[in-house]
Amino acid sequence: MPSRPDDDDPRLGDLSEGQILSAILARTASGSHTLLGPGDDAAVIAAPSGSVVATTDTLVHGPDFRLAWSSGFDLGWKSAAVNLADVAAMGARPTALLVALAVPRDLRLSFVADLADGLREACRALAPGCAVVGGDLTVSDVLTVAVTALGDLEGRPPVTRAGANVGDVVAVAGELGHAAHGLAVLFGRFREDDVPVPVDVRRLGSGESAAVTAQLRPSPPIGLGAVAAVSGATAMMDISDGLALDARRLAAASGVTLSLDAASLGPHPERALAGGEDHALLATFPAALLPPGFRVIGSVVAQGEESLLVDGAAVDVTGWDPYRDWDSASG
Amino acid sequence: MPSRPDDDDPRLGDLSEGQILSAILARTASGSHTLLGPGDDAAVIAAPSGSVVATTDTLVHGPDFRLAWSSGFDLGWKSAAVNLADVAAMGARPTALLVALAVPRDLRLSFVADLADGLREACRALAPGCAVVGGDLTVSDVLTVAVTALGDLEGRPPVTRAGANVGDVVAVAGELGHAAHGLAVLFGRFREDDVPVPVDVRRLGSGESAAVTAQLRPSPPIGLGAVAAVSGATAMMDISDGLALDARRLAAASGVTLSLDAASLGPHPERALAGGEDHALLATFPAALLPPGFRVIGSVVAQGEESLLVDGAAVDVTGWDPYRDWDSASG
Repeated sequence: MPSRPDDDDPRLGDLSEGQILSAILARTASGSHTLLGPGDDAAVIAAPSGSVVATTDTLVHGPDFRLAWSSGFDLGWKSAAVNLADVAAMGARPTALLVALAVPRDLRLSFVADLADGLREACRALAPGCAVVGGDLTVSDVLTVAVTALGDLEGRPPVTRAGANVGDVVAVAGELGHAAHGLAVLFGRFREDDVPVPVDVRRLGSGESAAVTAQLRPSPPIGLGAVAAVSGATAMMDISDGLALDARRLAAASGVTLSLDAASLGPHPERALAGGEDHALLATFPAALLPPGFRVIGSVVAQGEESLLVDGAAVDVTGWDPYRDWDSASG
Repeated sequence: MPSRPDDDDPRLGDLSEGQILSAILARTASGSHTLLGPGDDAAVIAAPSGSVVATTDTLVHGPDFRLAWSSGFDLGWKSAAVNLADVAAMGARPTALLVALAVPRDLRLSFVADLADGLREACRALAPGCAVVGGDLTVSDVLTVAVTALGDLEGRPPVTRAGANVGDVVAVAGELGHAAHGLAVLFGRFREDDVPVPVDVRRLGSGESAAVTAQLRPSPPIGLGAVAAVSGATAMMDISDGLALDARRLAAASGVTLSLDAASLGPHPERALAGGEDHALLATFPAALLPPGFRVIGSVVAQGEESLLVDGAAVDVTGWDPYRDWDSASG
């Protein structure tokens, strides 16, 4: 839980970089691949199989989160989770995070400490053995968290988006549309005069509460990325911008069409198709190789005019393009 | 050179993420360690010696650069250089960069294209074989470039800050105080009504011009990091916050005192001691092992009350703490 700002909780602008870093580093854990952790010019991480998977993803206040809705813990957790999912989507096991934090001077120290807790706990829950090994702290008027995640393929080739074969099944592991539902709940019920206000959980039903948690603190099935690779996944990606948009990307990279069954997409197929930020894993497998944890939602067919079909028909559902859709003036 | 904004040069807010990424990716080169480059959930980089060096450093508009003074090319170059220096300071050879870019909607596409050019050319000039392998693009009111650099130790142990031995020589490779001099020139001569204005090179002498270039587009001696490690450096770091502050950090980590000779610090020892952002390499060696490219500036002595001495006396020169010193209101 976030600490309450008060006089014992200094603003970052009143502290030196060293004081802030000390508070953060006191919250980090050691990872099983960490050969040299924070404190030097760079970290050193084991890459036992001779290559390293690397990805970076940034959360910016405004388009990606609101401080009225997200605690420091939530923000740390989510910034870890979205990056861990990208490593998992290659079939790799996450080994390390680096965190570039740009923070306003009036932010409280407790917020940053909570953020470090969230990073650590997300690693512990979603990718045991992975830990924060380094980072950077700068000043900015816009709170920004840029995380880089590293991972190890354990000797396997990476599972790219490009390997889906006609006849494979299309499968997912993880939730579809929950995070978007949560965002809709937040936008619909926790704004006053169009300004975000804190979430009062007493106003939420249990389904809404789970959806809000999926939005603020997602728990994608990170460990199933390596499971899919071991099992023989032919293509994989994480669903960050909605199933419809991301399925089209996988189809295009593989030169195929993905044909999905609406009935397999849960009670709200439109929400499952359009909703982003769940970071579920979308993968294709020869049918006989489908591992536990994945559920079939369709099949790979020969490339047609449409790269995505749902119940045999084209769909008019697009995902989330933060660049086009976000208006900073609306908070 | 930066392109001129005009009607053929759209603002980023009028483009989709995919359009912007295409323009950036068209400017990236392939690296010699790149096993899988941009376009999938994550990149894969060779780590032939079984470990990977990783570091991250962020440039934020305001505290770290001004658009009035830095072109997109400058910004891309500098954001690469400062991270390459951290990899070099471990004795490693840089293999890959990941770039998290948060950009305002009214920025022109040409600026981002120039930034990609600067990243590529800095790699080519300073760390051949290293390349941008991945990144992320988000919207922010504050232009922010967070770069993560990876490197390979080629089978050597990392050179940390902690290994300096009494009797070693203290040596540097690269410039001292030039970047700070350049910043002073910019602040002193290219502001009107306290607002930064574009640099007119005709108003600069050759020394000033070189100093401004050192500030906007630094060229630290990246290749000498691996040379130092091969030669037997006992400790090393890059000088990002000024020699005085960073020498104290190395001394503290090693449990020694560094005793420097002012005469070896060039014509402006105070500037060399206080000035940050040169990203020169500071290293200690057994005297017989000093490699070409490094020059001796002092010696390692037993830990005393002061961690840094200059001509045998304590110095009252501190470095640059962006967190404490920057005031966003001053532009």
